[in-house]
Amino acid sequence: MVVKDEIKIGMLGLGTVGSGTAEILRRNRDSIREKTGSNITIKRVLVRDLNRPRQVDITGMELTDDPATIFSDPEIDLVVEVMGGIDTARRYVKEALRRGKFVVTANKDLLARHGMELHRVAKENDRSIYYEASVGGGIPLVRPLKHCLAANKIQRVMGIINGTTNYILTQMTMHHKEFETALKEAQEKGFAEQDPSSDLAGRDAANKLAILAANAFRSQVTEADVYQEGIQDVRLRDILYAAELGYVVKLLALGEEKEEGLSLRVLPALIPKTHPLAGVYDEFNAVSILGDSVGEVMFYGRGAGSLPTGSAVVADIIDVVRSINHQVVNGIMEIDFKRKDIIPMARQHSRFYLRFKAKDEPGVFAGLATAFGQERVSLDMIIQKHREGDTAEIVLVTHDVQEEKFEKAMAKIKCLPAVRSIDAILRVI
Amino acid sequence: MVVKDEIKIGMLGLGTVGSGTAEILRRNRDSIREKTGSNITIKRVLVRDLNRPRQVDITGMELTDDPATIFSDPEIDLVVEVMGGIDTARRYVKEALRRGKFVVTANKDLLARHGMELHRVAKENDRSIYYEASVGGGIPLVRPLKHCLAANKIQRVMGIINGTTNYILTQMTMHHKEFETALKEAQEKGFAEQDPSSDLAGRDAANKLAILAANAFRSQVTEADVYQEGIQDVRLRDILYAAELGYVVKLLALGEEKEEGLSLRVLPALIPKTHPLAGVYDEFNAVSILGDSVGEVMFYGRGAGSLPTGSAVVADIIDVVRSINHQVVNGIMEIDFKRKDIIPMARQHSRFYLRFKAKDEPGVFAGLATAFGQERVSLDMIIQKHREGDTAEIVLVTHDVQEEKFEKAMAKIKCLPAVRSIDAILRVI
Repeated sequence: MVVKDEIKIGMLGLGTVGSGTAEILRRNRDSIREKTGSNITIKRVLVRDLNRPRQVDITGMELTDDPATIFSDPEIDLVVEVMGGIDTARRYVKEALRRGKFVVTANKDLLARHGMELHRVAKENDRSIYYEASVGGGIPLVRPLKHCLAANKIQRVMGIINGTTNYILTQMTMHHKEFETALKEAQEKGFAEQDPSSDLAGRDAANKLAILAANAFRSQVTEADVYQEGIQDVRLRDILYAAELGYVVKLLALGEEKEEGLSLRVLPALIPKTHPLAGVYDEFNAVSILGDSVGEVMFYGRGAGSLPTGSAVVADIIDVVRSINHQVVNGIMEIDFKRKDIIPMARQHSRFYLRFKAKDEPGVFAGLATAFGQERVSLDMIIQKHREGDTAEIVLVTHDVQEEKFEKAMAKIKCLPAVRSIDAILRVI
Repeated sequence: MVVKDEIKIGMLGLGTVGSGTAEILRRNRDSIREKTGSNITIKRVLVRDLNRPRQVDITGMELTDDPATIFSDPEIDLVVEVMGGIDTARRYVKEALRRGKFVVTANKDLLARHGMELHRVAKENDRSIYYEASVGGGIPLVRPLKHCLAANKIQRVMGIINGTTNYILTQMTMHHKEFETALKEAQEKGFAEQDPSSDLAGRDAANKLAILAANAFRSQVTEADVYQEGIQDVRLRDILYAAELGYVVKLLALGEEKEEGLSLRVLPALIPKTHPLAGVYDEFNAVSILGDSVGEVMFYGRGAGSLPTGSAVVADIIDVVRSINHQVVNGIMEIDFKRKDIIPMARQHSRFYLRFKAKDEPGVFAGLATAFGQERVSLDMIIQKHREGDTAEIVLVTHDVQEEKFEKAMAKIKCLPAVRSIDAILRVI
């Protein structure tokens, strides 16, 4: 064992996560040296604008706008990619690996699309990529799946892994705000970006689920394998009906391994108030993992932010440094994963929550019952309360049914003359 | 890298945890071989009675009542200690290490008393001890503290780490059962042992807290450093009063690093209903860890049981096998920990919940106010409701106060002529 006295980092980007990483390495320098045996220094940082003032202490770092000075520096053992984006980041990560650098990244979009390619390049160059920070900010998730729960066959991962949508849904649930109001406030408070579409549409959560599912089910999974539905159409009215029925509405990421293959879904769903995930509020994240031996374990914490995410980046850096000092190779290689079948959405089963308006006249329920009955959709709960003029608002919850059959029943129901509008369809977990 | 095709285990004990471990190694043999590159086999098992029928498939294992056959077997790389108890287990673990075996143990009592000695013997023999299963069953805790959260200075660990007491308190809280009834039912259902004193008195939780605190605060901590108070005196009446005040009663294990040193306490405490730990019911465990970078993260799951605990034992076995195959040494050594000061209980600060009976006459509150005032104990909440004859029951919650001052005030209050009995003193977190 040859412990290197000095480990030097090249960092790509110095935004929110980069600043948090630098701050933690500075603040906890002594205890990190105790844990690794090495001094860890950020030597060079790639930035877009060399002259912009920085919030973080950059003493000792050389800022550069030329990435080649990082890749060609033989003193640099390790490249930390916290610049975000896909195409340029992908090129840089591959170049770093080819030059023999280890890579730590927080980039979920990059990994969910090109993870397997990057792991392959890493293997060809006898290096590895660490990416704990790409899911759940500082909450340990990738490492527990790879190591702590390695004894288990993982059956399900289920979680709230997008802080923006959880903040908005919490505001709607607790303070009875409409979606638009809650979104606007989230933007003002910095919990939602000015262009929030990736969060709202479930794309961010789908990227993270792809990364979790790959490790949980040991399969090559990309973001394209994940069915995605966002919260744009969730109305306050549905959250209130859900509460009445004993549920809360959350944007759930849900991955399961079944006999036919993998079921991978991100969607707004009703979950029982008594479920541990129902108590995850505001911008917090939580992931529940079901293993065949351990049963259900849950991990909870802040899923974003400069220091929490930096905490995960630095944990990865510490692991890389231990790998360098002890000549370890990453024992659990993603590229050895096979590609398991993905179950198409039409063949998935769900319970459904349905809200619609119908003319308040005899025979409406008979029409519904026939349409549902023909597709063998059976009903669990019915609420009819709200009435305006001759129009009644009706809420139904079905028992478990195949998506395809529910779709067929809905096609018929939309054609019933008494049905005025279909206002909400949500799944119940 | 020389991957050993076959790794052979010697196991000490084949009770609940041993059976779970054997079952998982059998059931998930293929995926574990994929993850480690090796076939892992239990070669010999030390048992007390060779002829007792076993619930677990023991094909291929040699049962023995002679431990020497395990220690002297050069094929055995790894000893798994799941026999429990202290003195014999301690001798066996040391012997295994001296014979060059790696050790995995689930024995919290052993580690909380003799951990540092065992780690020293391990180091002398260039081996290491793994003990994820000793705290929180299958919930990953030791590994996250050592690795996933390595970037953080840990400020607090706080948790519910004894399933028996949490089951009893849940029954009292949810079904308004008295302590004795809840204990009896827990024994009937197997959630409490026939001699439940170690659980009830907080000793089991103190052992686990010692192990967590050593890793969280990087200090040599033993069970004797932990202040211990059990739930034997918690009455249903106090749980109901707590509910009225917005709290639930839990047996909390609480470790904090402060300027003056470490504060380590196991005690029944009132925690706010909105705190994530308040929603941890029945035999479940949860630990919240506060780090300077990551903020609060929480880990939740089943803290005991054959398969959940076996899951943690097998995770450790997998790590040992990876260590053997990649020639890694354990980078984070417990024996390098210094011994930090422990803050004595008298110097700790708490809020207190106090229930007592007093004669219902003028001047009672004046006497109380004087006694508390002299020690600068200020009151946050007062309930006076229940009255029998001329005796009133009074419940108080104080603001934060030093234990010593509260004790002094209580000594005076006990002497007030109107005070008939002090019925409960609990801390509020």
